[in-house]
Parts: sequence; C-alpha cells; structure tokens
Amino acid sequence: MAVKKNQENVGILKKLPVSNKVCTFGSNVKKIGEEDPRKLIHSIKVGLAIALVSLFYYFEPLFNYEGFGVSSMWAVLTVVVVFEFSVGATLGKSVNRGIATFLAGSLGVAAHKLATFSGSNKLQPIILGLSVFSVASIATFMRFVPKLKARYDYGLLIFILTFSMISVSGYRDHVVLDKAITRVTTILIGGAAAIVFNVVIYPVWAGEDLHNLIATYIEDLGISLEGHGTQYFKKLNIKSEEELERISLEEYKCVINSKATEENLVNFAKWEPRHGKFKYRHPWEEYLKIGNLVRKCANSINALNSDLSSCNMTQEGRKKIQEPCTKICIECGSALKEIALSMKTMTLYPTIDSYILKAKASAEKLRSIIRSGGLIEEDELQKLLPTTRIASLMLDLV
Amino acid sequence: MAVKKNQENVGILKKLPVSNKVCTFGSNVKKIGEEDPRKLIHSIKVGLAIALVSLFYYFEPLFNYEGFGVSSMWAVLTVVVVFEFSVGATLGKSVNRGIATFLAGSLGVAAHKLATFSGSNKLQPIILGLSVFSVASIATFMRFVPKLKARYDYGLLIFILTFSMISVSGYRDHVVLDKAITRVTTILIGGAAAIVFNVVIYPVWAGEDLHNLIATYIEDLGISLEGHGTQYFKKLNIKSEEELERISLEEYKCVINSKATEENLVNFAKWEPRHGKFKYRHPWEEYLKIGNLVRKCANSINALNSDLSSCNMTQEGRKKIQEPCTKICIECGSALKEIALSMKTMTLYPTIDSYILKAKASAEKLRSIIRSGGLIEEDELQKLLPTTRIASLMLDLV
Repeated sequence: MAVKKNQENVGILKKLPVSNKVCTFGSNVKKIGEEDPRKLIHSIKVGLAIALVSLFYYFEPLFNYEGFGVSSMWAVLTVVVVFEFSVGATLGKSVNRGIATFLAGSLGVAAHKLATFSGSNKLQPIILGLSVFSVASIATFMRFVPKLKARYDYGLLIFILTFSMISVSGYRDHVVLDKAITRVTTILIGGAAAIVFNVVIYPVWAGEDLHNLIATYIEDLGISLEGHGTQYFKKLNIKSEEELERISLEEYKCVINSKATEENLVNFAKWEPRHGKFKYRHPWEEYLKIGNLVRKCANSINALNSDLSSCNMTQEGRKKIQEPCTKICIECGSALKEIALSMKTMTLYPTIDSYILKAKASAEKLRSIIRSGGLIEEDELQKLLPTTRIASLMLDLV
Repeated sequence: MAVKKNQENVGILKKLPVSNKVCTFGSNVKKIGEEDPRKLIHSIKVGLAIALVSLFYYFEPLFNYEGFGVSSMWAVLTVVVVFEFSVGATLGKSVNRGIATFLAGSLGVAAHKLATFSGSNKLQPIILGLSVFSVASIATFMRFVPKLKARYDYGLLIFILTFSMISVSGYRDHVVLDKAITRVTTILIGGAAAIVFNVVIYPVWAGEDLHNLIATYIEDLGISLEGHGTQYFKKLNIKSEEELERISLEEYKCVINSKATEENLVNFAKWEPRHGKFKYRHPWEEYLKIGNLVRKCANSINALNSDLSSCNMTQEGRKKIQEPCTKICIECGSALKEIALSMKTMTLYPTIDSYILKAKASAEKLRSIIRSGGLIEEDELQKLLPTTRIASLMLDLV
C-alpha cells in the first residue's frame, strides 16, 4: 500500500510541471487573443470558409455524381493553403496559384500530347521523365532569384507541382485534358471563396498595417527621445525613479530588428487593390526607405542610451549641457510624435517645422558651448570611448 | 513601304529594353549559380527526385491497376512541397507532414464515424460542418502562437487540410478508412524519397551553414576592426587610398540585419540528426546568443565608423591616441579572426588570450591617457555628439 501511495505521489509530482506548462501555454494563447483580436477573428473566418466549402463538396455528389468528383478536394485544399492573415497575402497566393496552375496545366497537357505523339511506348516515359526533370530543375533554380522569390515563390512551387502531376498522370489523352480543366476550375472556386471570405468579413489590409507600423515606430522613437530629455537631463539625482520609468526610454528597441517584417508587408501590400486611404499604386517601396531611416535613428538612440547609462557625468559638466540637450530631445521627440500623428491621420501639421527649427537652434547652441568651453580635444574622446566599449564587448564575446 | 519599315524600327526599339531586361536577368541568374553552386545542385536534385517519383507512379498502373490510383499524386505532391534546400528544413517538413496527416486522418475518420453513427441524414452535415469549423478555427489560431509557429506551422496547416478533406469526403465508411490509409502511405513514400535524395546526394546541413555563417560574421568584424586600425589611425593623411579601401571597413554591415536568417537556420538545424562535427543535441540556441553579441559589436563598430567619418580630428589629438587605438583595433581584430578560425576548425587556439590581454593593456593605456590629459569633461562630449548626430538624423528624416 505504502509503495502504491508513493507511486501515486510521484505521479502527481510528475504531473505538476506538465499542468504548469499547460497553464502558461493557456495564458500565452489568451494574451495573443487579447493583444490582437484580429487574430481571433481571422481564425473564425478560416474555420467558416473551410467548413462551407467542404460542405458544398459534401452535398455536391448527392445531386450529381459525375460532378467534380475527386478533384473537388482541390477546392478545399486551395482554401486551406491560400487563406492568409492579410488581404494582400491571400490575393498574392491566389493569383500565383491560379496562373501557375493554368500555365503548368497547359504545358503539362502539351508535354503529354508530345509523348503520346511519339507513338513508341519505350520513348514515352523517357520524354516525360526528361520534361519533368528539366521543368522542375529550372523552376526550382528560379526560386533562388531574389526578385522572383519575393513575389512568385509560391507560383513557381505550384507550377512544378501541377506540371509533374498532369504530364505523368498515366491516363489517356482526353482524360488528361479533362483533369487539367477541372483542376483549374476547382482551384478558381477555392481561391474565389478564400478571397471573398477574406475581403468581406473584417478584412486585414497589409498596406494599412505597414502604414500604421511605420507611424508607430516613429512615435516610439519620439517617446524614447522625450523620455531621454526628461529623465537624463532634467532630473539629476533621482535614481530609483529613473529605473521605474526606464520602460519609456526603451520604446525604440523593437524597431531595430524590424526589417524582415517590413519587407514582408510591402510584398503583400503590392498585391492589394485600392482600399481606405490608399490608391492601387501607392508607393509602398518608400515605406522601406522610411523604415531604414527609422532604424538608423533607433541605432543612434541606442548608442546614446548605452553611453548615458555607462558613464558618470560630473555635476558641472552635466549642468553645462543640460539645457540645450533637454531641448533637443524634447523638441525632436515632439516633432517625431507629430510626424507619426500626421502619418496616421494623413494630414500635414504645420507645427512640425517649428519644432525642428527649435531643435536646430538648440543644436547650434550646443555646438557653441562645445567650442567656447575650450574643449578642443573633443575629437579624441569620441575615438576613445567607443573603442574601449568595443574592446570590452569583445571581451564579453570571448 | 516606308510606313512598314518605320513600324519595324519601332518594333526593334520597343524590343530593346525587353531584351536588355532579359540580359540582366540572365546575368543575375548566372551570378547566383556562381556564388553558391549548391543552389544549382539543389535544383538538379529536386528535378531528379520528382522525375523518378512521378515515373514510378506512371508505371505503377500498368502493373496493377488497383494500386494507389489517384492517391498516387500525393506522393508527387509531397516530394515537391517537402523538398527544401537544407536537410533540416526537409526533415522538419516531412515529420510535420507525416505526423499531422496521421493525426488528422485518425481524427477525421473518427468524426466521420460519429456523424454516420448519428443515423439521421439531417444531423450528419451539421455535425461534420461544426467539427470542421471548430478544428480549423482552433488550429489556425494555434498557428499564431510563436513557439508553435517556429516549429509546427506547416504541420498545423496540413492538419487542417487533411482533417477537413477526410471528414467531409462524402464516401461510405470503409472507403474513408481506406482513403486515410493510402494517403498516409503515399505521403510516407513521398517524404522518404525527398529525405533520401536530400541526404544522399550532396547534402546541405542547416547546422553547418549556421556555424559557418556565425564564424564568417565574426571574421568580418575582425577584418573591419583591423581595417579601422590600419586605415584611420596609422596612415594619417592618405585620403584617396582611404576611399579605395573603404570596402574592407564595411565588412560588418551585412551582420546588422541578419537576425531573421539566423533564427530560420536554428529552427532547421534543430531537426537535423548527428552530422559531421555536430552531435544530435548540439546547443543551437547558443548560436543565437553569439549572433546577438556579434550584432551588438557590429553596431558599436557602426557608431565608431560614422563618428570617424563625420568628425575631423586635430593632428595633435590624433597623435596622442594613435598608438593605443591602433593596437586595440589590430589586436581585437586578430583575436576575432582567430576566434572565427578556431570556430571553423573547431580547435581552440591558445594565442587568442594573448591578443585579448594585449588589447586590454592598450585599453588601460588609453584610459590613463584620457585621465592624464586633463580631459575631465570627457563625459559631456559623449553626450553632445551623439545628440547632435541624432538631431541631424531627424532633420534628414523629415
């Protein structure tokens, strides 16, 4: 009995970490839903679209047993594979899939015709094998070309898939043609269903996401800069509060590694039609340039931040530069926040220029302080401190 | 006649830009093949695998018409979809696809049984529709959980696909079970073919790629640092040569936006078995930490680089710090290059420590120069210059 009870205890003990894991997983999932309810809505949309399309094909053989038959599964498959989070991604995948299936289908039928035309039974598999090999190899290599990869990667994959399946299906001529036609039709139906569900019910536009993302990044930079202005330069000795409000200083950090996200959104946005405030040929590429500038700016703030937290300023030194530094930070921060707001509302605020003029004036003041303060050897210091920082970083690295 | 000739001329003129585009596209493609011949080999491998698998299924109905029949296309489909560039990615996708198909197949058969068990013809589509809807919604939402997305995204997609296709196939009971079994078998055959071709013919290991990538990054940093040492601090006034050899100074730039690449490789590497110098449970996560440190270091070099190119040092100031700065750069650069070499050869070089000790000694020297030079107000400068840089960056931004 004692042994058994012991085993039970062990069982409970063993279960505990698992149930803990389940709990943290559950709370993680809940957090995702709360942070972005669009993800929850998207999941329901996908479920609805798949259920309706598959039920349509469930009923279809009851009415007309000849119908699409087995090919019907391609419609369900298309909905599942093509239904993405944003409208742009869904449209891109659908168009890729549709065009690639059509092209590969025609080419596959042609290859099949050519092989049967040769007459000889021995030549046929050789011709087919060679054509599948060469088409698959060339298309796979094309997928490495960066420009094609960004926009047509999925299409090339589907092209290989459809071509090899159609050309080597081992059926007689007219069946192959029929097969190709039904495949294209069912894929069109599936793609259309995915697009309709995606656009009609609470659409998520990649272009709008991109626009808001960049605006938020600029705002984050503004908040960080303002934080630096008030934290480091104004209040001199409040250490504990500094620690408390550190969060607002590090807003910029999410910007540094955002390049991949931005590039994806631009690729999706290019597929999207006119929506909201954006025209069809909105210059999406420009957002990448702004993103790069924002990242550069975030890196500068990062350098400033690590300098500020690693060195101890003397009281008098701090006093000298305090006023213009605070002003630069706050004015630039306000300008950035204003730019973000004007991006979000898509109206130009005339006050932005005045902030920048003020910041420029403060920068000029700062420069004159440096010059007048007799700090001739400023340049050396600049060299020294980053270098020692690098040296210590390298030591960390080893 | 004149009109016709004119039209021909226009035709030629119109063709020119197109043929130009084709030419640049062709040279681009050639460059990709020359830069990484493994991409060419990969394309040929894919072509070979697909051609062989599809020919196998082309011959199969000739021997035994009952065989796998239409399901055979799933083998071709699996090869096309699962065959990725590295072994890890291929294994990950195959395992995901296999397990997801098996689980979803069993669950689909169960749902189908449940629906037919209900007896009533009206209840059946409701039960099936609800089950497809709920499974698809939940699985789609799971795809947003970052941990699941990294490793099991493809599996979840296939799970939704297989479940909806099996449970709503509109066939009688035993056919559904048969269908599920043949699907799993053909997918296993396709997956196995993809894995065998990928591993046997010139395999590309994601783990090895990751290891070499990080080593190359460290080497690049070393080269950049050494370049800074010889360029900026030793030769004082050679401006034109500086411009010429700028390239070696900017080696570090490719490191800054490499986070996404590294994360992908780590995810793939985790799927790989023991290969070459790497054991099965090689601590791949550690590479991400090294990658982050390398990126931090690259950002520091970036800051140093932009400071160096934007400011003009005075001759005397430069002379004062020249010797220790050169030494720090060269010693740290050598240490980094040695670390990269020891990573590549996987042997520890004892000389690394000596480089670091020398660099540390030089850093100490530099610090004493700063102190002795009466540069008390060093800290301020640090504050000023990044801030003015930020201010000017912001002005660029507007």
